[in-house]
Amino acid sequence: MTLNLHKALDTIRELAAATPWPETVTPLLPSGLDEAGFWPVGFRSAGVSAAIRYDKRDLMILLSENPASAAAVFTTNLCCAAPVMHSKASLVKSGGRMRAIICNSGNANAATGSKGLADAEAMAGATAALFGLKPEEVLVASTGVIGQPLPIPKILGAMKELPAALLRNSSLDAAEAIMTTDTFPKFLSLDIRLSGGTARVSGIAKGSGMICPDMATMLAFLATDAAIEPDLLQRMLRNANRNSFNAITVDGDTSTNDMVSILAGGNGPSVSEGSRDAEIFSEALELLMTFLAKLIVIDGEGATKLVGIHVEGALSDREAAMAAKTIANSPLVKTALHGQDANWGRIMAAAGRSGAFFRQEEAEILFNGLSILKAGFNADFSEEDAAAILKKPSYTMTVRLGNGPGTATIWTCDLSKEYIEINGSYRS
Amino acid sequence: MTLNLHKALDTIRELAAATPWPETVTPLLPSGLDEAGFWPVGFRSAGVSAAIRYDKRDLMILLSENPASAAAVFTTNLCCAAPVMHSKASLVKSGGRMRAIICNSGNANAATGSKGLADAEAMAGATAALFGLKPEEVLVASTGVIGQPLPIPKILGAMKELPAALLRNSSLDAAEAIMTTDTFPKFLSLDIRLSGGTARVSGIAKGSGMICPDMATMLAFLATDAAIEPDLLQRMLRNANRNSFNAITVDGDTSTNDMVSILAGGNGPSVSEGSRDAEIFSEALELLMTFLAKLIVIDGEGATKLVGIHVEGALSDREAAMAAKTIANSPLVKTALHGQDANWGRIMAAAGRSGAFFRQEEAEILFNGLSILKAGFNADFSEEDAAAILKKPSYTMTVRLGNGPGTATIWTCDLSKEYIEINGSYRS
Repeated sequence: MTLNLHKALDTIRELAAATPWPETVTPLLPSGLDEAGFWPVGFRSAGVSAAIRYDKRDLMILLSENPASAAAVFTTNLCCAAPVMHSKASLVKSGGRMRAIICNSGNANAATGSKGLADAEAMAGATAALFGLKPEEVLVASTGVIGQPLPIPKILGAMKELPAALLRNSSLDAAEAIMTTDTFPKFLSLDIRLSGGTARVSGIAKGSGMICPDMATMLAFLATDAAIEPDLLQRMLRNANRNSFNAITVDGDTSTNDMVSILAGGNGPSVSEGSRDAEIFSEALELLMTFLAKLIVIDGEGATKLVGIHVEGALSDREAAMAAKTIANSPLVKTALHGQDANWGRIMAAAGRSGAFFRQEEAEILFNGLSILKAGFNADFSEEDAAAILKKPSYTMTVRLGNGPGTATIWTCDLSKEYIEINGSYRS
Repeated sequence: MTLNLHKALDTIRELAAATPWPETVTPLLPSGLDEAGFWPVGFRSAGVSAAIRYDKRDLMILLSENPASAAAVFTTNLCCAAPVMHSKASLVKSGGRMRAIICNSGNANAATGSKGLADAEAMAGATAALFGLKPEEVLVASTGVIGQPLPIPKILGAMKELPAALLRNSSLDAAEAIMTTDTFPKFLSLDIRLSGGTARVSGIAKGSGMICPDMATMLAFLATDAAIEPDLLQRMLRNANRNSFNAITVDGDTSTNDMVSILAGGNGPSVSEGSRDAEIFSEALELLMTFLAKLIVIDGEGATKLVGIHVEGALSDREAAMAAKTIANSPLVKTALHGQDANWGRIMAAAGRSGAFFRQEEAEILFNGLSILKAGFNADFSEEDAAAILKKPSYTMTVRLGNGPGTATIWTCDLSKEYIEINGSYRS
C-alpha cells in the first residue's frame, strides 16, 4: 500500500479547478502541502501505526481544544457496527459536545457482538484518559474486515504515540490512517467569507471498495472553527449529506460502518440559525462534502470514469432520485460507460424499471449537453461527437423524463474488470 | 454464433438429474433428440432465417391446430416494446384464445414509436393470412437491439418458408430462432400423469445477456395438450412465474421485451379449477418454468455458477424476497461467489440494507447445509469444507433471519470479468 500522494494532489487540483466555487468560498489547494495548516484553528490531528492489518498508519485522532459542537450521520444498514452504535449513544450522552474522534482502519469491529461494543468503549475510554476528556466526548469509528475481534492491545499500545504525533499536527498522516483499499488520501480545506470574518471548514474522507463491507466503508471527518450550535450543525450536515455522500454510488452496496461527522470548535465567527451566514456556510459545507464524495467515486474500485447522472422532469424529486439511482447502479449502464458506448437503450430500460413514472416517447437523453435521444425515440446524433464526450474521464448524463418538476443528481463510476479482480479474490 | 447442442444436452441432462421430480412428472430427456416429438399433440413449431442480425435462424412460429387457451405475463418495465403492447391487446381482443406465437430475434422492436406498433401488427397480420387465422389469434414477440426499426420486408419474406418448415416440426429450430447472445438453446418437455390420462407440457426459452435490453430479453413459450380454461391457465402461469422466471437474476436489469406465454390446445385430458389435477399440473408447470429459468441463469453472461439464495425466518415472504434479491444482486456478493469466498460479511451487509427487518446477532448463514455463520456472530467453520462447496458449479446459500415465517428463493449467478467484456464492448 503506497500513499500515492502525487495522484492525490493531481486529482484534487483538477477537481478543484473544475468546480465552480462561489465568491464566498476559497479552496486551499495543496500547493506547498502545509500539513499542519490544514485544520481550522483549535484542531489537531495525527495518524500512527498500530499494525492492525496494513503496513501503514492505521490509527487516527482528530482533537479539538474546546468542547466542540458535534453532528454525525451514520449508516442505515441494520447490520451496523459496534463503533456506530457506541458513537450514536455518546452523541446523546454528551448533548452533542465532543472533543475527539478516534478511528482505526484494518478492522471494522462489525458483527462482533458484545465484545465489539466493549472494545469500542475501550477505545473511547483510553482516548479520554490520555487527553483528560470525558469518555462520552469521544466519537469512535472503525473500518476494515468484518467479523473479527478488534486487536485492542495493539490499538492501546499505539495510542501512546498519539500525544507526540499531535505536536506535528499532520493532516496527511490522519488521512492516511483512515484509508483501507483507497489508492490515495482524500482531503480538502475551504475558507469561507462570513459577516463576522473568515471561517475554515476542512475534511478528510475514505471510500474505495465503495461501499465495501469487507474492506469497508465510507468515512468522512470534518472540522470547522465556526461557532455553531449542535442542532443547527446536525441539520446542516444532514442536508449537505443528502446531495453529497448520499448521492454517490460505486456498486450500490452500503456498509456496516459508514459515518460522516463534523466538529465545530467555536474559535471562529458565529453562524446562527436563519442568517445569511448560515446559508453561506451550508453551501460551502455541501461543496466540501460533494468534493470529497467525488474523490471517493474517482477512487472507486476499478473505476476509470466519474459520471454525473442528472434526472429532471420527474413527478417528484423522490422519483427523480429513484430513476437516477437505478441508472447509476445498472451493471448494463455501467459497463456501457466503461465501453464508452452511448447506449441509450440501456439507460431507458433502467429508468423504465426504476419505479419513476414517465412516458417513454417523451424521454430525452443528453451527454454534456449533446442530445443523444430526443422525444419520439429520435436518436439522430453524431457518434463522433458522442465518442469525444464519452472518452473523457468525467462528464454528465442528463435524462429528461418530461413529466414534472422533480430533479436529482447522482455521481457514479463505470464498472470495469478491475472491480471483479479486486472483489473476486479470496479474503486472505 | 454456434448452436452448441452438446452444451445444451449436457446441461439439460445434468440439471434434470439433479431435480427431484415428483412421481406424477416424467421429464423427457433429449436422448435421441426427437425434435418432432417434443411438443404436445396439436402443436408444431418451426424456425427459419430472415437474416435480421445474426447468421442463424431468427424467425420462430409455434402453431396450435385448435384455438388454444392462452395466458401470458409480460415485462413490467415502463419502456415496454411494441410487440408487448400489441400482444396484450390481442389477448383481450381474442378472449384468451390463440392459435400462434410469432417471434423474431435480432431486433427488439422497442423504442420504435408508432412505426413499431404498426410493424408488430404487420407481423401478426401476415402470420394470420398465411395460416387462415384471425390477426388477434397471433401473439407477437421480438428480441434484439433496441431503437431500430424492424426490417419488415425481410421478415415477411422469410415467413413464406414457415409452412414448409412446419412439416419438419423442429423444436430445436424454434429454440434456436429465439436465441440472441445465448450460448445454447433451452428446452424441456414433461409428461404429467393426470386422472384423465397423460398430459404433456413443453417449453423453449431464451435469456442470456440477462436481462439485457440491448441484446434483449427473457422469453419463454410453452404449450400443453391439456384442456384448461384461459382464466385458470392465466392464474397458474402467474403463480408459477413468481417462483421461476421472476425468481432469477443475473444483473438485476429487466428488459423491455420480457414475455412468458403458454397455449393449452385441448387435445389431452381436462384440468379443471380446484381439482387435484390442477394441483399436479400447476406443480409440473412451475417445475418446467423453474428448469428453464435455471438454464437461463446458467447461461447468464459471464456466469460460471448457479447459486440458489434461500432466505427464511423473515417477517413475511415479501421481506424474505427483498433480502434474497438484494443479496443476489449485490456486486460484492456476486464477485465473492465468483472468487469462491465464504464472505459472510458481504451477505450480512446486503441483507442489512435490503429493507427486511432482523436482528443481526440472530442471523445464520449456511452453504449447502454447512453452517458458515451461527447466531451471535459465530463464524467458526472449516474453510476446507466451505471451499469444497464453493468450488461446485451449483449450490444453495441459506440465510436465516430468525424473525418469522417468511421465506423466498432466488436463483442467481456470479459476476465475472467476462460479463464486463460482453457488455462493455461497443454496440456495433
